[in-house]
Amino acid sequence: MKDLYPSRHATVAEFLPRHDSVVHGDWNADAPITQEQAERFDRDGYLVLEDVFSDAEVTYLQREAGALLGDPDALEEETVITEPGGREVRSIFRIHAQSHVIERLAADARLAGVARFLLNDDVYMHQSRLNYKPGFQGKEFYWHSDFETWHVEDGMPRMRALSMSVLLAENTPHNGPLMLIPGSHRQFLTCVGETPEDHYRQSLKRQEYGVPDENSLAELAHHNGIIAPTGKPGSVVIFDCNIMHGSNGNITPFPRANAFLVYNAVSNRLEAPFGVDRPRPAFIAARGEPQVITPITGPLMEEALT
Amino acid sequence: MKDLYPSRHATVAEFLPRHDSVVHGDWNADAPITQEQAERFDRDGYLVLEDVFSDAEVTYLQREAGALLGDPDALEEETVITEPGGREVRSIFRIHAQSHVIERLAADARLAGVARFLLNDDVYMHQSRLNYKPGFQGKEFYWHSDFETWHVEDGMPRMRALSMSVLLAENTPHNGPLMLIPGSHRQFLTCVGETPEDHYRQSLKRQEYGVPDENSLAELAHHNGIIAPTGKPGSVVIFDCNIMHGSNGNITPFPRANAFLVYNAVSNRLEAPFGVDRPRPAFIAARGEPQVITPITGPLMEEALT
Repeated sequence: MKDLYPSRHATVAEFLPRHDSVVHGDWNADAPITQEQAERFDRDGYLVLEDVFSDAEVTYLQREAGALLGDPDALEEETVITEPGGREVRSIFRIHAQSHVIERLAADARLAGVARFLLNDDVYMHQSRLNYKPGFQGKEFYWHSDFETWHVEDGMPRMRALSMSVLLAENTPHNGPLMLIPGSHRQFLTCVGETPEDHYRQSLKRQEYGVPDENSLAELAHHNGIIAPTGKPGSVVIFDCNIMHGSNGNITPFPRANAFLVYNAVSNRLEAPFGVDRPRPAFIAARGEPQVITPITGPLMEEALT
Repeated sequence: MKDLYPSRHATVAEFLPRHDSVVHGDWNADAPITQEQAERFDRDGYLVLEDVFSDAEVTYLQREAGALLGDPDALEEETVITEPGGREVRSIFRIHAQSHVIERLAADARLAGVARFLLNDDVYMHQSRLNYKPGFQGKEFYWHSDFETWHVEDGMPRMRALSMSVLLAENTPHNGPLMLIPGSHRQFLTCVGETPEDHYRQSLKRQEYGVPDENSLAELAHHNGIIAPTGKPGSVVIFDCNIMHGSNGNITPFPRANAFLVYNAVSNRLEAPFGVDRPRPAFIAARGEPQVITPITGPLMEEALT
C-alpha cells in the first residue's frame, strides 16, 4: 500500500497535502451538530461543545475518575502512566475497557453520535485514557500531530479519526490547558529522523521522536495563531487527528483532568505500522476487529443502574 | 533590629501581618497615576499601564536588548544567567549599569515618577535585569514573593519596594506570562527550612529554598484567583514586592522579553541579611549608599543622542 503520509524518513521536514476530508459526512438537518459547527470544525480542526454533560453527570464522572486514580493497583499495570521521575499518576490508558462508567461515556450519543457524523462511518475506540495533570508540578507536553504517531507507529492508514476531551476539571488559561493551532490539520507536517524500538515507553512521558521541527511550528503558529479553549467541567473539546497541539506545564494549584476518547472509523482500522517494525501495544492503539460502538441516549447514570 | 518578617526558621509556614503600606504616599491631583489606579494597586498589589512607550521607543529598546543578548561576552560574566542545562541567555542582571539605554529607561519619569509616588521617597535601583524567555523550551518559574528573598537573603528591612516589567515582547495567555495572585501582597507568607550558603547561584535558575508551601499557595489561589496580565510591547506591569507570582513554561514559538526594574525607597536601603550570614552579591541586590534616581522626561531616544 502506498504511504500517503510518509514521515521520519528524511533529514528535512516538509508540509505534504492532506488527502482526506476533515468532515467526512454531508451535513443535513438530522446531523447532531449545526451546519455552522460542522463548517467550523472543517476550517479550524476543532470544536468546543459547552455543557454537554449535566452537573450530576460531571460529579458522577469525577467520582469514577477519583476512584480509578486513587487505586491504580486495581488496573492493568502497563496502562498506568506516571509523571517523569515521579509516582503521581498522569494517565490511565484503555480506560473504556477497565471502567463501565467510561465505557458508557464513550458510547454516549452526545459523543459517539457526533463522531459517527464527522467520520461518516461506524466508529470504534482507537485509544482512551483518563488524564490527570496535577497542580504545582504538571509537566508540559510538546507540540505534535496525533496522526503522525498513529500512522507511523500504529499503522492508521488515513486521517479519519478524531479525539474528544471531556473536561472533568476547569480549563483555565493558566493551568496548562490544551493548546491548538487552528487550521494546522489541513497539511501533514513530516517529522525528521527515525524511530527507535519501544519508543512508546518513553514517548508517553516525554516526546522525543515524531517531534515537529521548530521552524515549521513557528510558521504554523505565526500564520494561524494559537488558541487554548477554556471551559467548565462537562464541556467537550473535539479535535481532528492531524491538528497540531500541545500543552504548557502547570504551576498553579489547579489540576487538570479529562477523559480522552479517540474515535476511529471502522474503515480506517489499523494496518501494519508505516514507520516501525513492531506496532505499539493494543492498550495504546486498538488492533484487530473493531468493536463497533452503538450510541446510547439518556443520562450516563441510567445505564450504570441496570 | 527586630525582624518584622521572619522566614525560613520554622517547620510550618504561616501568614504574618503586613506592617507596611502598599501605597506609601497620599494621592493628590499631581500624582502620576489616577486615584482609581492607586486604589487598585493598593488592593490588588499590581497595576498594568498600557502603551507607556511609543512604537519607536519599543523598537529602540528591543534593538538594545537584542544587542545585549547577542553579545554576552561584552558583559560582566556573573551577570549573565543561562537556562538550566542550556547555554541560551535567560537573564542579564545589573543591566542599568551596563547599558546607557536601560539606565535612561530606569530614570524615565513614566516609571521612576510612579515609583517615587507609590513609595513616597527618593528611589534607587535595587535590582535590574533583562529577561528573555525563549520560545519552545522556556522553563517555568515557581511561585514566590520577591520580598521574602530580598529580606532573608539581601537584608531589605521593610516592604517599600516595587517591580516594573517593561514588556519588550507581547505577553499572550500562552507564552508563559507572569502570573500574579491579586491581594496576596497583604500578608507575609513565611517559608519553611533554612537557606544554604551561595544559594543564589542556583536560585536564579531554579528556586529551591524560600519556596512557599503548596497548602498556603492553594489557599491564596482559591481565595484570590490567578491573573496573568497580557499586553503589547511598551506596556508596563507594576507589582508590589510582596505579591505572590510565578510563570509557567513556554512551548509556543513566541518568546517573552522584558526589562525588569526594581525600585526601592532610599529609606529602605539594605542592611545585613535577616536569614543568612553572607548577603548575595551586589549585581543581584545593590548595597551601600543608594544612587538616587532623578526622573527624566521626554522620549527615551533624546537622551541617547546627547
